[in-house]
Amino acid sequence: MGNTINASIITIGDELLIGQTIDTNSAFIGQELNKIGIWVRRRVAVGDVWDDIVNALDEESRISKLIIITGGLGPTADDITKPLLAEYFGGKLVVDENVLAHVKYLFEKVYRRPGPILERNLKQAEVPDVATVLHNTWGSAPGMLFKKNDAIFISLPGVPHEMKGLMQEQVIPYLLQHMVLQAIVHRTAFTFGQGESMIAEKLVDFEASLPAHIKLAYLPGYGMVKLRLTSKGPDKELVEKELLPYFEELKTRVSEFLVSGEDEPLEVVIGKILSERNQTVATAESCTGGYIAHLITSVAGSSAHYKGSVVSYANAVKQDLLHVNEETLRQFGAVSQETVKEMAAGALQELKTDYALAISGIMGPGGGSEEKPVGTVWIAVAGRGNVITHKLNLRFDRQRNIMMATANALNLLRKFILTNT
Amino acid sequence: MGNTINASIITIGDELLIGQTIDTNSAFIGQELNKIGIWVRRRVAVGDVWDDIVNALDEESRISKLIIITGGLGPTADDITKPLLAEYFGGKLVVDENVLAHVKYLFEKVYRRPGPILERNLKQAEVPDVATVLHNTWGSAPGMLFKKNDAIFISLPGVPHEMKGLMQEQVIPYLLQHMVLQAIVHRTAFTFGQGESMIAEKLVDFEASLPAHIKLAYLPGYGMVKLRLTSKGPDKELVEKELLPYFEELKTRVSEFLVSGEDEPLEVVIGKILSERNQTVATAESCTGGYIAHLITSVAGSSAHYKGSVVSYANAVKQDLLHVNEETLRQFGAVSQETVKEMAAGALQELKTDYALAISGIMGPGGGSEEKPVGTVWIAVAGRGNVITHKLNLRFDRQRNIMMATANALNLLRKFILTNT
Repeated sequence: MGNTINASIITIGDELLIGQTIDTNSAFIGQELNKIGIWVRRRVAVGDVWDDIVNALDEESRISKLIIITGGLGPTADDITKPLLAEYFGGKLVVDENVLAHVKYLFEKVYRRPGPILERNLKQAEVPDVATVLHNTWGSAPGMLFKKNDAIFISLPGVPHEMKGLMQEQVIPYLLQHMVLQAIVHRTAFTFGQGESMIAEKLVDFEASLPAHIKLAYLPGYGMVKLRLTSKGPDKELVEKELLPYFEELKTRVSEFLVSGEDEPLEVVIGKILSERNQTVATAESCTGGYIAHLITSVAGSSAHYKGSVVSYANAVKQDLLHVNEETLRQFGAVSQETVKEMAAGALQELKTDYALAISGIMGPGGGSEEKPVGTVWIAVAGRGNVITHKLNLRFDRQRNIMMATANALNLLRKFILTNT
Repeated sequence: MGNTINASIITIGDELLIGQTIDTNSAFIGQELNKIGIWVRRRVAVGDVWDDIVNALDEESRISKLIIITGGLGPTADDITKPLLAEYFGGKLVVDENVLAHVKYLFEKVYRRPGPILERNLKQAEVPDVATVLHNTWGSAPGMLFKKNDAIFISLPGVPHEMKGLMQEQVIPYLLQHMVLQAIVHRTAFTFGQGESMIAEKLVDFEASLPAHIKLAYLPGYGMVKLRLTSKGPDKELVEKELLPYFEELKTRVSEFLVSGEDEPLEVVIGKILSERNQTVATAESCTGGYIAHLITSVAGSSAHYKGSVVSYANAVKQDLLHVNEETLRQFGAVSQETVKEMAAGALQELKTDYALAISGIMGPGGGSEEKPVGTVWIAVAGRGNVITHKLNLRFDRQRNIMMATANALNLLRKFILTNT
C-alpha cells in the first residue's frame, strides 16, 4: 500500500456478534477515512469481554497507525469500555467539567426529562485523564482520543448519529491536521441489467491494460453491477488526472448498461433527470408496498419532482383509488399486464404528474400458483400518451424479491423518461 | 465461556473496508450460530489482499474452533479467495463434476442466458481437492469445508441469499451433526418510549440479583430499548427453565413500556394484534414517504390486515385523494394537528379499514421554519368514531428522523388498537 496510512476499526458489543444489530457504523467510518486517503485494512468486532477488547487493541495497533473504536460507551451497566480504556492507556477516570456541563445541558434543556439527572448519566462526564476529549454535540457520551507508542486511538459512542457527527466534526478535521496523507481516488461506473460475468467479459483486455497501482473491482447489487476504479498517490489532482482516461474508457465499454458515472443510487439519478426536465412522477405500488416511494423520498428535495404514491395492497384500493376495472381484475388478475397499465393510468390521472410507475407481483412465500408462481411481477410506466410494460420472473425470498422488483422498476422508469423527449 | 464452542467470522472484500457495502452477512451468520449454541467471539473483515486473508485465517484459528469465511468467490477477477484456500489447506484446484453440472443447469435452464457458458462461469466448478463441497442451490459458487489442525473452516459466497441458503441447508445441519454443543438461550423484552438510562434505574437491584452466568444487555433502537437476558448450559430445557422466572420478573419491572416479550419488530406485533381481532388498517403518509407501508408489507401475510397507503407527498394529493380541506392546509399548514386528523379520516373513508394512521412532518435538512423547525411531526390514529394525535420534536438527520417518526407512529397505532375495545 506504499506509504498509505492504515487504519483498523474495532466495534464493541455482544449485539454485533449474535447478529441482533447490523454494523452500519464501520461502513460509514470506512467511507469517511477513505475520502481523506486513509485505508481501512481491518475491521474487527468483539464482545463486551475485557480480554477480547484488550487483545483487539494490542493486535490492531501492531497493524495500523490509527485505531477507531466504536460502542461500549452508553449509560448502562453492560458497558465496560471506559474503565478499560483508562487502564489500557495508564490513566484514571476523572470528571471532565466541560462534558459535565454538556450532559446537564442536554438533560435539562434538550431532552427535558423531569426529575434530577441520574447518577449514571452524570457518570458519562467521567473520562480517562490521559484522553483528549472530543466534544459530542449530539449526545452525552464524549469521544476520546489516546496515543500509545506510535498509534492514535479514537473511541466513539456506538449510536450511529452521534458517531457520524463526531467523525465529521471532530475526527476528520483532527486527522487532516495531524497526519500526512496519501490521496486515494475512486471512480465508480454504475451499470444495470447485465450480470457480473458478462460485464467482466467486455473488460478482459481493459483490465489487463491497467497499471499495477490501479485496481478494478466488481460490486454486484440488486440488478446492478458497480465497477470501481481505485488509484492512489501523493498528489490528489495528479491521481485524478491519471485515472480519468481509464475511467472514460471503462464507461465506453459498458455504455449500453451505464446508468451513471457516479456512485449514487437510482432514486438520485432519477431525481436529477426529473429536476433537469422540470417534470414529476407518481407511483402506484402493490407488491413493493411503498418501498419505491420510500427510496424516492429518502432523497432530500424529492418533493420537487415526486407527488406521492397509492400503495394499493388490496384490490379494492386498486379499484377505488386507481380506477382499475373490476372486470380487468377478474379476467386477468391483480398481477397482470392489463392491471399495471390501468394502475399507471389511474395514478397519472389522480396524482396529475408527467409520469407514473405501477407495479404488481407476488413476493412470496405464499400467493403463487402454477400459472403465476412466486416472483411473477408486472411493471408499467406511463407518460402522457404512451405506456410501456415489463415482466419479471424473480426467484428469491420475499425481502430480496421486493428489493429486486424495486430496482428494476426504478430502472424502467429512468429509461422511459430518457427516451421520452 | 465455559465449554461453549467459539467461532470467528471472516468477511473478505475491499468494498466492506471502504464502506461501499454494509455487512449484513455477519449478522445473519451470528444469529444462526447462536441459535445452536455456538458463540461468535470475533468478526473480522479484510480486503482482497492475499497476506491479510492468510493472517486472518491463522489468527482466528488460534482463537476459534470454527471459522466461517464469506465473500471472494464471485466469477470476476478481483476474487483471489479460491486459489488462496487451495494453497492454504495444501490442495490444488480441480473441476468438481457435480458443481460443473449444476453451473451448466443454472445457466442453461434457470438464467437462460443466450450463447455458450462463459469460461469464467465454468471455472466456478473448480474447487480445492482438499475441500468438502457444500451444494449451493441458489447460485454457481459452491460452499467449501476444510479442516486444519483442530479447526473447521467453511467458505461461503458473499451474495446474501446464497450465503443464507447454504447456512440453513448445509452448514447448520453439518455442525449439529459433528459438534457437541452447549445451549445458549436468549429472551428479549422489547420496550418503547423510555430511554436506556431510565430503564436501567428500574433494573438496578434486578441486575444485581442475577446469577453470574445470566447476562442482561441493553439494546437501544429507534425510540425503543430491547432488554436481552442470556444464559447457557449443557441442557437447553434446563437453561430455559432456569431463565424463565428472571425473564418474567424483568417484564414486570418494565411492564409500563413493554411492547412484546419476543424479539420482533413493531410491524409484526401490530400484525398479530390485528389478525387476532380480524381488523384492518390503512396509512396516509407524508413525511415518512411510504416507509411505514414498506415495514408493514415486509411481513409475509400482511395483506390480511393491511389494505394500503396514500403517500401524499404533495399537498394536492392530500386534497384530491384524502379530502383534506384546502382551508385547513392554508390556515394550519400541511404539518399540523388539523391536517393529520383529516388525513386519517380521509384514509379511513377511502380505504375502508377499521383504523387509519396518518403522519406529516418536516424531515429536513430544508423546509423548517421558526414556528415549525425541522423535526416537527404530527401523527394521528383514527378508528371508527375516535381519533388521537401526537406531536414529535425530532432532532436528527433526515434518515434518522424518518426512522424515528415511523417507529413512533407504529407504536401509537399499536397503543390505540389495544385501548380500542
